[in-house]
Amino acid sequence: MGPGKADLLDAIESSGSISAAARNMGMSYKRAWDLVDTMNRCFRQPLVSTATGGSHGGGAQVTEFGHQVLRRYRALVAKAEQSVATELQELVEMLAPGAPKG
Amino acid sequence: MGPGKADLLDAIESSGSISAAARNMGMSYKRAWDLVDTMNRCFRQPLVSTATGGSHGGGAQVTEFGHQVLRRYRALVAKAEQSVATELQELVEMLAPGAPKG
Repeated sequence: MGPGKADLLDAIESSGSISAAARNMGMSYKRAWDLVDTMNRCFRQPLVSTATGGSHGGGAQVTEFGHQVLRRYRALVAKAEQSVATELQELVEMLAPGAPKG
Repeated sequence: MGPGKADLLDAIESSGSISAAARNMGMSYKRAWDLVDTMNRCFRQPLVSTATGGSHGGGAQVTEFGHQVLRRYRALVAKAEQSVATELQELVEMLAPGAPKG
């Protein structure tokens, strides 16, 4: 799990399909599908379930397990960032004025 | 700053040149140079200094400022990881047995 995969799960959740999620993220369908496939294979249970066929050519949903992983990942990142807020600010102050802070 | 840029600074430090560092990291020279250029422009002072000419076609050094940034970045990451060690372990346990943990 990482920021890109977490954002992809959010995008699948809100759009209901991998292709729409890929489009919304400016990512190729193949890339999105590969990321979903990697996540589904690397975790104990699938994070995304897909349905084939239907009028929209199938669709995709984040599973309950996927929601759990996403929630835990987001909480972990928030806690980690919080724990180093001062150090992060000190590093940001070493950046040139006007430099992107991302 | 991120893991890739931090590792590149380490590789420049130990090899004394951007081209050797790129080679050691399996990265193109152009990619390494672009990353160095981005770092040098984004921070208040250069993180890497380069010398042109000479028998090795110049060389590169991590500046004192670069060492400071690198030290602070590594300390920040270590503290952040430490702060979420339990949560990280819980996420790792949601991975399939045998899945890469990176």
